[in-house]
Amino acid sequence: MAVTEVWRIDMTSYTVPRRDMEFILEEVLDTSAHFQKIIGGEEVNMELVNQILDAGAAICEDVLAPLNEVGDQQGCKIGENGVETPPGFKEAYQQFVEGGWVGLTGEEEFGGQGLPLSLNVVMSEIVGAANWSFGMYPGLSGGAANALRAHATPEQKETYLTKLVSGEWTGNMCLTEPHCGSDLGLLRTKAVATANGTYKLSGTKIFISGGEHDMTDNILSLVIARVEGAPAGTKGISLFVVPRFNVETGAANGVTCGSLEHKMGIHGNATCLLNFDDAEGILIGEENKGLGYMFTMMNTARVGTALQGICHSEVSLQKSTAYARDRLQMRSLTGPKNPDGPADPIIVHPDVRRMLLTQKALTEGGRAFVYWLAQQLEAAQLSTDGPNAELYEMTEFLTPIAKAFMTETGFESVNHGLQILGGHGFIAEWGMEQQVRDCRISMLYEGTTGIQALDLLGRKVFGNGGKSLASFTKLIHKFCEANTDNADIAPYVTELQRLNKEWSDITGKIGAKAMENADEVGAASVDYLMYSGYVVYAFFWAQMAEVAAKKIAAGDDNDFYKAKMETAKFFFERLLPRTATYTKCIESGAASLMSITEEQMYMG
Amino acid sequence: MAVTEVWRIDMTSYTVPRRDMEFILEEVLDTSAHFQKIIGGEEVNMELVNQILDAGAAICEDVLAPLNEVGDQQGCKIGENGVETPPGFKEAYQQFVEGGWVGLTGEEEFGGQGLPLSLNVVMSEIVGAANWSFGMYPGLSGGAANALRAHATPEQKETYLTKLVSGEWTGNMCLTEPHCGSDLGLLRTKAVATANGTYKLSGTKIFISGGEHDMTDNILSLVIARVEGAPAGTKGISLFVVPRFNVETGAANGVTCGSLEHKMGIHGNATCLLNFDDAEGILIGEENKGLGYMFTMMNTARVGTALQGICHSEVSLQKSTAYARDRLQMRSLTGPKNPDGPADPIIVHPDVRRMLLTQKALTEGGRAFVYWLAQQLEAAQLSTDGPNAELYEMTEFLTPIAKAFMTETGFESVNHGLQILGGHGFIAEWGMEQQVRDCRISMLYEGTTGIQALDLLGRKVFGNGGKSLASFTKLIHKFCEANTDNADIAPYVTELQRLNKEWSDITGKIGAKAMENADEVGAASVDYLMYSGYVVYAFFWAQMAEVAAKKIAAGDDNDFYKAKMETAKFFFERLLPRTATYTKCIESGAASLMSITEEQMYMG
Repeated sequence: MAVTEVWRIDMTSYTVPRRDMEFILEEVLDTSAHFQKIIGGEEVNMELVNQILDAGAAICEDVLAPLNEVGDQQGCKIGENGVETPPGFKEAYQQFVEGGWVGLTGEEEFGGQGLPLSLNVVMSEIVGAANWSFGMYPGLSGGAANALRAHATPEQKETYLTKLVSGEWTGNMCLTEPHCGSDLGLLRTKAVATANGTYKLSGTKIFISGGEHDMTDNILSLVIARVEGAPAGTKGISLFVVPRFNVETGAANGVTCGSLEHKMGIHGNATCLLNFDDAEGILIGEENKGLGYMFTMMNTARVGTALQGICHSEVSLQKSTAYARDRLQMRSLTGPKNPDGPADPIIVHPDVRRMLLTQKALTEGGRAFVYWLAQQLEAAQLSTDGPNAELYEMTEFLTPIAKAFMTETGFESVNHGLQILGGHGFIAEWGMEQQVRDCRISMLYEGTTGIQALDLLGRKVFGNGGKSLASFTKLIHKFCEANTDNADIAPYVTELQRLNKEWSDITGKIGAKAMENADEVGAASVDYLMYSGYVVYAFFWAQMAEVAAKKIAAGDDNDFYKAKMETAKFFFERLLPRTATYTKCIESGAASLMSITEEQMYMG
Repeated sequence: MAVTEVWRIDMTSYTVPRRDMEFILEEVLDTSAHFQKIIGGEEVNMELVNQILDAGAAICEDVLAPLNEVGDQQGCKIGENGVETPPGFKEAYQQFVEGGWVGLTGEEEFGGQGLPLSLNVVMSEIVGAANWSFGMYPGLSGGAANALRAHATPEQKETYLTKLVSGEWTGNMCLTEPHCGSDLGLLRTKAVATANGTYKLSGTKIFISGGEHDMTDNILSLVIARVEGAPAGTKGISLFVVPRFNVETGAANGVTCGSLEHKMGIHGNATCLLNFDDAEGILIGEENKGLGYMFTMMNTARVGTALQGICHSEVSLQKSTAYARDRLQMRSLTGPKNPDGPADPIIVHPDVRRMLLTQKALTEGGRAFVYWLAQQLEAAQLSTDGPNAELYEMTEFLTPIAKAFMTETGFESVNHGLQILGGHGFIAEWGMEQQVRDCRISMLYEGTTGIQALDLLGRKVFGNGGKSLASFTKLIHKFCEANTDNADIAPYVTELQRLNKEWSDITGKIGAKAMENADEVGAASVDYLMYSGYVVYAFFWAQMAEVAAKKIAAGDDNDFYKAKMETAKFFFERLLPRTATYTKCIESGAASLMSITEEQMYMG
């Protein structure tokens, strides 16, 4: 029997990209200075951040990443005592809790470590890259904790929030029902008030990530439901916390996992259909205000989901680069580059480089954007100078861009990664196709790309008269002004200035058309969002290039900075031109979408 | 327990799109007239084609489509007697053979039905859409049959070809080895001549679709290997037929399936690692000419793979349209369209329409292109006027465009289909994610998109001095000339004329740069291929619009023709502008890809 010589990369490996994270945090964003201006952040500096990252990298690389393949292949199962997570998840969760990772940014009064919130995004990136399915369990606890933090009574916080902060229990979010996802006003889950002040909830919720599992003794569902007699639509929605087991008696509450979904990816995370059958629920805040409360969770969750694009993209890039450096196939068009070998490594081929650089530019551009966005969100709410409403609104404007653009381009990136491996990319053992399958959900949950785009253009742009867009373009303008004479990045500054103006012009044009026909908003929305995303990334690539050029000029002439310059050049020359197509599509208007009838849309 | 009310489309259903097929075959391409000019086609007309399609639709819709989900979920297994196909596949194959479908276009002297080759593309589409994994088994037999037809001796044809034409045995193609895929010159499988005129083959072949299965008594592998002492590289490759069992004695030959690949999709097709251990092989043609022979199969296989994009796209479109018409979620931005219901069907939302129309425009545009291409291929080789070398070269120029562009855009389309279903798209039961997983391989096998692009630009454009490109742009030019005064399609004619010139100009510019730096070809190649694909589709959309407008003007004012006009408008306004980005990327040249070093490409 012939020997099988298939060369394999270790697909379970993931290395935390410390140098790039440090570059963004320290050299681009000056994170130490940022924390000086944040309440409770005075003692946080890069030295501390690096200590956290040392420990974080250890658990991500050594514990979570090795479970990523297992999670995918074995998935979750319904056993005798309910949902079972894949082998190793329970123990890993325990280590994660013991390491204090769940409560990293939780308040000390509730048992957390009290570190600034914006550190979450950094830690979430490396946990998510190591094992996205695993990271969703504590990630969703964080969302539930945010809702309780903002809207629960002190007693409720004591009972529930402390358990989420410590990680002793996990939380999940129960919004979707079989007949309603994007349109929550249609929800049917019913809540009936009882004599003791609690409610009885009945209904079916689907797509509940982490809805049930075996990693903790109790699970808290944050559930939206309609109290008997409440108004129809979104104005009659209330928020409840429903523990799987009664927190006093330990008795099973009326919430059961009816089934686990069979899905394309994220197999390690239990996606449950939860049946509520007179389950005891505790009202959070006031009746009929639940949708607003839920959005408290959703906003955090959207930034978390934006990260998912970066997580998969980073892992895919690590593997595709390693493969491209090692795989020998054909000769360079300009003559052998590895003359002693039987062929050249495929990294010499221009089109392989196009794919690698696309991955790299999207990953690093997205990382800079989302780290900065998390810091701005923190600065807007927790600045030592007090809250900043204008800044907060700007972060709200940027959140749907981050969520949709980073996941759409993340999916593009993981597909390039798979493609670089050729046929091997399609084979499970290499791990590239899992990244594609896992990433695919990111464009769907927490609001699809289409929903983000409507939120962006309808609510965040036209809804506030373009104020937030103006706040952001002002930042770009300032940057350009400051770099008028910076020869190192001159073409980028020129292009950014042009785009900055074009962005406003296009917005105005859509607005004018929308006055005549509201469908113009929907018709332009996704192209507008994608256009905006490229402009945002261009801004961050220009900033990164500015920093790198300065370092090189100062004699710090190393490959890392040169790579940044090269990648910026690639972004501006090869990815940013996509805006040309988006502007044309936006300008084409609604007619090409709306004049075809429903019947004509498909005729066999 | 609450009742679960998840609404499900029957995911096993597929309806052959007869009206659109007929429109393209009869009204756009005038297929009856085409067959009049083909040797052996004189008696074939649309009436006969429709009879074939009646019977073909029955087996595709009733037998093959219902096995598509089973194939995905159960996949292939290695049992006691070797590889087992999913439940039902064996019986379905038997029906397929008995229906005469394997030998539809095979020569009557070898037991086939003698119908024109171009009918394969029509039948392959509906078989592939019903169940791509199933269709690959007879599809690969067809490729192997082509190689034998062209290069085997009459005795070899009698022994092997007849079995493939009848479907009694299947064939497969053994090219890839663990260390070589795109670069077949590196192959190591060894062939040693024996006294009786046969050869002993030893080596390992991977990614062999249909490499082993339980549907037929014997399997013929067409294997490329290097005869002892043959030159290194591509000039020392010979082609052999290796039957799984000796065709005279029935003894097992030394070819065994070492393992089945675990892969992202096409689970119903067995992707084997085949070990050849002194397996008896019969030389086809002459020694050291095997690579050329193999390309005989590859060209057919590439058109077949191009179709894969259309197959998945069509099925996905059928389901996404049905879902969009039924799923109620939110109100139209211009006021309720379903005032008596709780919400409007999502087909009212502009962005859902954008996705549906993208699917529709790509599917129908691709269908027109590939049906026409198959007819041109046939006309070039089998015209009653004799072979036409110029036309044949033009089809060779168009083949890599068809293969790469139709699969890339097919993958885009199935992702839109999944997206339209929101979270449900990610769930296996709906079948949308299977379309995405199955489709993903199409951009990899039979030469990746990157390989097709190099073939296009390097060999098919610059390799023949742009002659084939000129032949095709001449067709576009003629069409535009003939429609100078056609007001119904005036904007499309204008745009086509502009693109036709731009296409030549861009080609010239790349050529000039490539004289200085060969990497300019690789740097432009994929963008150039994608650009070309959009121009080709624009040509077919203009032709379809011309036909539809004529019908409408003649009083045949039905929805089908109006839908064509709307979709053409959509294609020109919303998809064709992508060419603007490709031209910019092409013009940016090789520098942004080549100046970054291997080391800098990833620095952690």
